[in-house]
Amino acid sequence: MLSTCLARWGYQIKHIDNRAEPTPTGRADGVQPRSLDLLRNMGLKSAIMAHKPARVFEVAFWDPPRTGGGIIRTGTWASCPSFIDARYPFTTLLHQGRIERVFISDLEKNGVHIQRPWTIKSFNSDDRSDPEYPVEVRIEHTDGTQQETIRAKYLFSGEGARSSVRDQLGIKITHKDPITHVWGVIDGVVKTDFPDIKMKCTIHSENGSIMIIPREENMVRLYIQIASSTDKDWSPRRTATEIEVQYSAKRILQPYSIEWERVEWYSVYPIGQGISDKYTIDHRVFLGGDACHTHSPKAGQGMNTAFLDALNLAWKIHAVEAGFADREILTTYESERKDVAETLLSFDNKYAKLFSQRPPAAKEVQAASEQTSPQTEDNEFVRTFKEGCEFTSGYGVAYKPNALNWSPIHPATSPLISPDGIKLRTGRIMINANVTRVVDANVVHLEQEVPLNGSFRIYVFAGRPSTTSQALKDFALYLGDKRSFYGSYLREDIDSISHHEKHNPHSLFYTICTVFAARRDQVEIIRDVPSLLARYRDHVYADDRWDHWVPDATAAAHAKMGLDQEKGGIAVVRPDGYVGIVTGLVEGSGTVDALNEYFSAFCTKKLGQKLAQL
Amino acid sequence: MLSTCLARWGYQIKHIDNRAEPTPTGRADGVQPRSLDLLRNMGLKSAIMAHKPARVFEVAFWDPPRTGGGIIRTGTWASCPSFIDARYPFTTLLHQGRIERVFISDLEKNGVHIQRPWTIKSFNSDDRSDPEYPVEVRIEHTDGTQQETIRAKYLFSGEGARSSVRDQLGIKITHKDPITHVWGVIDGVVKTDFPDIKMKCTIHSENGSIMIIPREENMVRLYIQIASSTDKDWSPRRTATEIEVQYSAKRILQPYSIEWERVEWYSVYPIGQGISDKYTIDHRVFLGGDACHTHSPKAGQGMNTAFLDALNLAWKIHAVEAGFADREILTTYESERKDVAETLLSFDNKYAKLFSQRPPAAKEVQAASEQTSPQTEDNEFVRTFKEGCEFTSGYGVAYKPNALNWSPIHPATSPLISPDGIKLRTGRIMINANVTRVVDANVVHLEQEVPLNGSFRIYVFAGRPSTTSQALKDFALYLGDKRSFYGSYLREDIDSISHHEKHNPHSLFYTICTVFAARRDQVEIIRDVPSLLARYRDHVYADDRWDHWVPDATAAAHAKMGLDQEKGGIAVVRPDGYVGIVTGLVEGSGTVDALNEYFSAFCTKKLGQKLAQL
Repeated sequence: MLSTCLARWGYQIKHIDNRAEPTPTGRADGVQPRSLDLLRNMGLKSAIMAHKPARVFEVAFWDPPRTGGGIIRTGTWASCPSFIDARYPFTTLLHQGRIERVFISDLEKNGVHIQRPWTIKSFNSDDRSDPEYPVEVRIEHTDGTQQETIRAKYLFSGEGARSSVRDQLGIKITHKDPITHVWGVIDGVVKTDFPDIKMKCTIHSENGSIMIIPREENMVRLYIQIASSTDKDWSPRRTATEIEVQYSAKRILQPYSIEWERVEWYSVYPIGQGISDKYTIDHRVFLGGDACHTHSPKAGQGMNTAFLDALNLAWKIHAVEAGFADREILTTYESERKDVAETLLSFDNKYAKLFSQRPPAAKEVQAASEQTSPQTEDNEFVRTFKEGCEFTSGYGVAYKPNALNWSPIHPATSPLISPDGIKLRTGRIMINANVTRVVDANVVHLEQEVPLNGSFRIYVFAGRPSTTSQALKDFALYLGDKRSFYGSYLREDIDSISHHEKHNPHSLFYTICTVFAARRDQVEIIRDVPSLLARYRDHVYADDRWDHWVPDATAAAHAKMGLDQEKGGIAVVRPDGYVGIVTGLVEGSGTVDALNEYFSAFCTKKLGQKLAQL
Repeated sequence: MLSTCLARWGYQIKHIDNRAEPTPTGRADGVQPRSLDLLRNMGLKSAIMAHKPARVFEVAFWDPPRTGGGIIRTGTWASCPSFIDARYPFTTLLHQGRIERVFISDLEKNGVHIQRPWTIKSFNSDDRSDPEYPVEVRIEHTDGTQQETIRAKYLFSGEGARSSVRDQLGIKITHKDPITHVWGVIDGVVKTDFPDIKMKCTIHSENGSIMIIPREENMVRLYIQIASSTDKDWSPRRTATEIEVQYSAKRILQPYSIEWERVEWYSVYPIGQGISDKYTIDHRVFLGGDACHTHSPKAGQGMNTAFLDALNLAWKIHAVEAGFADREILTTYESERKDVAETLLSFDNKYAKLFSQRPPAAKEVQAASEQTSPQTEDNEFVRTFKEGCEFTSGYGVAYKPNALNWSPIHPATSPLISPDGIKLRTGRIMINANVTRVVDANVVHLEQEVPLNGSFRIYVFAGRPSTTSQALKDFALYLGDKRSFYGSYLREDIDSISHHEKHNPHSLFYTICTVFAARRDQVEIIRDVPSLLARYRDHVYADDRWDHWVPDATAAAHAKMGLDQEKGGIAVVRPDGYVGIVTGLVEGSGTVDALNEYFSAFCTKKLGQKLAQL
């Protein structure tokens, strides 16, 4: 993910992998709804979906019946319930190797060829000896026959839980929960009469617990807990054969039968919960993914969290290296992503503990269910699952206030900021909305209209054209000022840009979208849109689509964002899709002034203040 | 399309093409909504969409203003308006060569390699000399160096308007409208300030008429009429240079400017309306596509009509050759498809005539628009366009009654047929509906659930499980009878079919879907579905999704079909997606009896009659 982003944005990448080939079997396989949005934003979703992955819409809970043996279904719950406004309300299950290959193919289009099997021998980071390329990395072919020494601006370790870079930096792991579990995992094709074999299931029985995850090509993955450090005879080297795990699964699934036609992958591994104390020390050498956080595989978060780690770092490195943002913003990588990892571990902790505990006896279940109903509401496991849905779908990520995520303690203090009624929350993902593109009448997903191009997304919700005509002209006027956040970062090649350029005609750091609270046929770009904004002709929209979230709104996108449907407002969305700041849209210089204040908090140039008064 | 279908279903295809390579530029480019459904049903849609085709949601009409010169937009209209229940309410515009390559790649997966550049020298069809392979075809490399003689079961000419096969058969062309037009067409990348350059536009000006069609990769196609056989100085060889056509376009688009940055393709060709008197003579040698019907390019119907010609023939050949249907059904290819071509030409005739006529003078427009408003309602051109939307989208195709499309004159006379309130119409496309698949809780498009596998699709709308329990058991019981339409056509290899086979576990000629009017979590396959139907475990659905077409229905799919939400009913859909017959679902043998009557009209075997009484 990190290499893909940076390679697309023009950086030279040396990507090494100590495996001789991409993941052939097993490992992570769950792509959460928010990650699928991201893959789509990168133009990679269709390549993923071409493999016909399994889609998990619901999770089923199976427990021992009140009386007698075996298991019964005690409830089901949407994996991404309807209270979450997701474009793709399901988990996508696909073998990690296939996902890797989609990225590898994209990297190759941008001239990056993964060097394998190579590994890091050592590295040194010292910006006094070479301020431009301060990191020296020695790499070696795994067979020891070849070595290289590279000078780089940055080094990123996505090596996984046993990161040699982390070890060399002397960064420790903190264990939130000291308990370690040994898991058995088996991917294969089965023959079974268990009715929910194509659903995600968590099954508790008198004979143990198991988790079922459907896969592509009729495969199914079973996770089974083999041992826990709380066991009397605990050993982290405790293992089980494939046959033993299959036998356990058969006992747990009784009265249903299960037989393996083919086993694709089988593994047993211990997993402890851990979180890296630091994600970086000098903001040149970074860690991400499993190198920073390990946890149980239950909630399918591993690959997704790693994606978002890398995305977070990628655009910040780009902003710094392209001369747009202060180097200081790199500190927000750790503060933002470590906080997410803490939340994940805390969730995982509750979730995994519940999963691995002995199921309640039939009598206990009966007693509990007689008190309230439906029974599933009583079960802490189910309750934890429901609570965690927003988080596990990826839409729960909430970055805390900093220079990028406006809050009342931010240096920007314009009274226009954070208008009354606003529903967009800084540090949270942009809200979804359907709008109609004016030039071609295509109905589009507004939040997907700007591709992952490293630019801040300036959404001008322009309200009703007759009301905001002057405010919009003023906004464009002050935006065009050389000292504005916009005018200060124009492209050097601005005079030679093709008129076909849709996203970055003026600046590599901004893409502007203008959304009118009007029907498409009422918007005339030549008449209604100031020329600076009209230059983004493929990014002018009519907010004229009905939305069931705001059924009575005349301009649903404005309403969903919590912006006035007459007067509009401006939303600045970070390159990674998280809201940075929202302001009102007013006549005069106030709107641009407010945004100048915001960008001044982290941009490299001194941005014009109170332009109208100069 | 024909080769692709038959190759997938296991037939050996010799496919020749007289061009040395697939279409490099130009030709047809419009894929209509119904065709996109079909491509999706074949699993080819994503490969088409990967090329990022233009999508036309609206058509804009431009005319001379009431006073003064130039052109103004007088209205816009959805290209597939919301009164049509389309999954993809837009026209997809993509270069024909790219669409061809998607098919060629699929053919290659099935072992068919197009032999090019080869052409037909002659053929002879005589089922007395060789009843099994009655067609002898002599083919030759276009450079004359190689020849082959092939014996085939069938010969199909998709050669286009100048079909040598049609000529050899002595089949004449009838011209519905004797007028011939000469068209200029130019594909290229332009720079223009014309605001609707990304929309489909029909433009009438004092300087002539033009049609704009947006394309992939910033391209745009312009159609301009150069001459008409009604001109005084008419000549079918009338031509114009690329520069002349560009000059005309510039004059027509005034006051807007247009400049070509790049011209990809330019051509001038005469087109007359014509329809082949016959589509076949002996039901061994067939014609389809432009070999059967030619018309103006205005409505974007050429490739779409050809697709549906081929699809119609493909499944019928399969049904006959696989021993399922009487050879007689091949006669329905011409009767069904020629009727569609007649409708197309009649529409095209009106549409093209309006397009090419001199626009009304400003005064005339003013006079007309003072009488009624909005002005667009007065314009015959716009009215014709609106009327034609259902037809041009592909959803207007209505096959007339015959053995396949039940009507009161069909041999099947059971009173259960065509229950009161039914909205499904025989000979028309299956109605769209969202349902939830029971085994994995995936929300799916019911009409897409059975792939284009050559099988009849038996949709069992099972109503409320408690109401229909016995009727469903009886349906399965009589279906299982050896003399039923179902039991008479079981697979020979039925005992060795993998339990993973989803669509054809018992018969190659049927796929069964069962849809309950219940919430997903209320349906228990083991309990509610008789085992014959439950064998299609991936085809059991809950009709529990809200639909804006029937906002008050509790079971929207049942309601959309016009079936009783308690008692259900059975819809039989032909392999090409058109409704064959609809019956009620009752206890006893009546339901299967009715379907036996229907299939008896064209099946090869004598099907059990009134099974319960035997």
